[in-house]
Amino acid sequence: MSKKQITLGDKRIGRRAFLASSAAVAGSAASASLSATVARAASDENLPPHVPSWMKEQGAPVLSPPYGQPSPFEKNVVRRLRTATPTQTAASTLTPLQDLHGIITPNGLHFERHHAGVPAIDPDQHRLIVHGLVEQPLIFTMDDIVRFPSESHIYFLECSGNGSWTGTNAKSTAQDTHGLVSCCEWTGVRLSTVLAEAGAKPEGTWVLAEGADAVALSRSLPIGKALDDTLLVYAQNGERLRPEQGYPLRLFVPGYEGNINVKWLRRLKLGDQPFQTREETSKYTDLMPDGTARQFTFVMEAKSVITFPSGGQLLREKGFYEISGLAWSGRGRIKQVDVSTDGGANWTKARLQEPVLSKCLTRFRLPWRWDGAPAQLQSRATDDTGYVQPKRAQLVDVRGLNSYYHYNGIQTWQVTQDGAVSNAA
Amino acid sequence: MSKKQITLGDKRIGRRAFLASSAAVAGSAASASLSATVARAASDENLPPHVPSWMKEQGAPVLSPPYGQPSPFEKNVVRRLRTATPTQTAASTLTPLQDLHGIITPNGLHFERHHAGVPAIDPDQHRLIVHGLVEQPLIFTMDDIVRFPSESHIYFLECSGNGSWTGTNAKSTAQDTHGLVSCCEWTGVRLSTVLAEAGAKPEGTWVLAEGADAVALSRSLPIGKALDDTLLVYAQNGERLRPEQGYPLRLFVPGYEGNINVKWLRRLKLGDQPFQTREETSKYTDLMPDGTARQFTFVMEAKSVITFPSGGQLLREKGFYEISGLAWSGRGRIKQVDVSTDGGANWTKARLQEPVLSKCLTRFRLPWRWDGAPAQLQSRATDDTGYVQPKRAQLVDVRGLNSYYHYNGIQTWQVTQDGAVSNAA
Repeated sequence: MSKKQITLGDKRIGRRAFLASSAAVAGSAASASLSATVARAASDENLPPHVPSWMKEQGAPVLSPPYGQPSPFEKNVVRRLRTATPTQTAASTLTPLQDLHGIITPNGLHFERHHAGVPAIDPDQHRLIVHGLVEQPLIFTMDDIVRFPSESHIYFLECSGNGSWTGTNAKSTAQDTHGLVSCCEWTGVRLSTVLAEAGAKPEGTWVLAEGADAVALSRSLPIGKALDDTLLVYAQNGERLRPEQGYPLRLFVPGYEGNINVKWLRRLKLGDQPFQTREETSKYTDLMPDGTARQFTFVMEAKSVITFPSGGQLLREKGFYEISGLAWSGRGRIKQVDVSTDGGANWTKARLQEPVLSKCLTRFRLPWRWDGAPAQLQSRATDDTGYVQPKRAQLVDVRGLNSYYHYNGIQTWQVTQDGAVSNAA
Repeated sequence: MSKKQITLGDKRIGRRAFLASSAAVAGSAASASLSATVARAASDENLPPHVPSWMKEQGAPVLSPPYGQPSPFEKNVVRRLRTATPTQTAASTLTPLQDLHGIITPNGLHFERHHAGVPAIDPDQHRLIVHGLVEQPLIFTMDDIVRFPSESHIYFLECSGNGSWTGTNAKSTAQDTHGLVSCCEWTGVRLSTVLAEAGAKPEGTWVLAEGADAVALSRSLPIGKALDDTLLVYAQNGERLRPEQGYPLRLFVPGYEGNINVKWLRRLKLGDQPFQTREETSKYTDLMPDGTARQFTFVMEAKSVITFPSGGQLLREKGFYEISGLAWSGRGRIKQVDVSTDGGANWTKARLQEPVLSKCLTRFRLPWRWDGAPAQLQSRATDDTGYVQPKRAQLVDVRGLNSYYHYNGIQTWQVTQDGAVSNAA
């Protein structure tokens, strides 16, 4: 069999790729073609090639194992520690965004952020207490919770510490820079349903949520959001929550920073003011240039990242590539994503994968012909409120450099002539 | 702390549940209320109760493990063998639908159907051959495949053998009766893109797809569907395909019976007629009452199943429950699901969870107040072509009882006075 390597300059694929898109990257449409190096067979007769070894014997039986696992060849697609911390029970791990496709994060790769590790909770022993400004304090079992009317939504979840205000590590991957965001289908009951069961009093304006971990992590949630789309969630991508995502029950506050989505939820207390817990005074505030701190900055603003090509990846040759990435907004739907290959001088609208859902990751894609010259890849998200993701300099102008949380500046990936991709954020 | 048990006859929840729905089950709306047995605390002061053991020590660190796993308390939520077979390399396993929520099937619980086991394929060694009536036979590596423009869609996948024409096992669960269906977000490249790359000739009307397992499982696909929405898929719920779902590459034919979604895809041959493979002559045909066999019956017709309450489950007391289930159609979107609690005498429209997507599972829900009397629960799906899921008798009238595949009759779950639920299909 001939294995002569050729470069396909096939205009059919070029046109197809660009027709499928809303538009091509400015300036490159005219010369678009797929130049993948594909082996061409000399003739039909000598196909197929030799039979691979795995076709010569029976494969593995079913139920090996009953709960399935990824291929051993994917063993490097795992969560990774974000930064070295004194203890790994107060730490965070990152989702490998650069290895993922579509919008769903498989449960085994959802990022982690714990303050005192993952408690091993027996769901039959777990209780949710609802008290404070209610007519009747109540204690729910998990059996009680799952009997309520339920809802399912595909929502992103992002740690407010996702991203970096300071410095640029050229070796960072998309996992390193943006891996504190994941996206699953979450199922549970509306918080409003449970509050109504206990008889919430009208003077109740804030809800304290407390977790059953060793720090009893606690946050205060305004009643407006609590009665809007906030859920008590017990399932994630179909199955019950994973332990590190709050098994058996967590608060889920769509579009709000990760830490208020209290895991291992054990207590809800209705009060008439915020509870000023440790997490909302010493932590999770935003220190401004004038020395004051913004408190209760819940919403995760519009953001995006190109996941291919991204830091640590390599373009082996010139030619056709599909730029692909993720965009999201805590305020609603993504309306538009623009992509630049020249560091922001020119922008082209990317194609958004349907369905585009509120407070959910949106996959965007744009065909691109890499001509072998250095390139600076950027993406810019716009949500349905009209908010446009800012450049780093724009964000720093307003917020200064005292902040740790809520960085959502435009990410830059540098492509060099040899095809190497690195972080230039 | 008081742990006096009370029965909540709280009208708030009753109204809330029913308002959230399009309608209540006929006849029960007036008396609707949630009667969950919830512990009432004597006063606010003695809350919360004693601190559980898991709050008294640090929990497990992050990355335990790097690729996460379900809680040990969920160890019974696994795939199970469908029927005893001479070898478990030619066998199928079932998704535990009764334990799942929403529409996504986690990858570890996707049903399996293998004809010669699961080959252990090195993706770097895997090749896809495209030949036959093409201008240029081509051999693709996986690197070539993932460079093409991609798409992601949430689609169901169902084995044509899902369901039973014969007999009723009262002990069957929803996993037993309907567990050969699953639903994931699939990402890949259009088959039409790859065929265009090889230069499909106009006289090509059928595509042979061959797997790289030990039986080289092969099916023929009409060119119309091949050029429509058929994909070559390499990712499933974000990550690369699981081995038992065709790693590293499978055909995905939305809405068509499972076996034509050829796993471990190694070869596509374009021809001018069906290839009459073993799987489409001796297997996967439908024997009609007159002794003739229908061949190439690809589409999975509209179907539904109630997953709660379902076979093997128990209602511990009278009162409020949410009936919940899944509906799907290989022809498009689910338009409506009706639910009956009296064996089909009366029907009520269920609420459909958005987004309702084409060729995707749709979650339906209906609030129900169980009065303690025997009940027969049924669901009936209607798709956007107007097709209505038939009763068993209607289906048998047309198809007879010679068939093994494509059973989509209405499922009945019997609830007895003691709350036990069993299969009465």
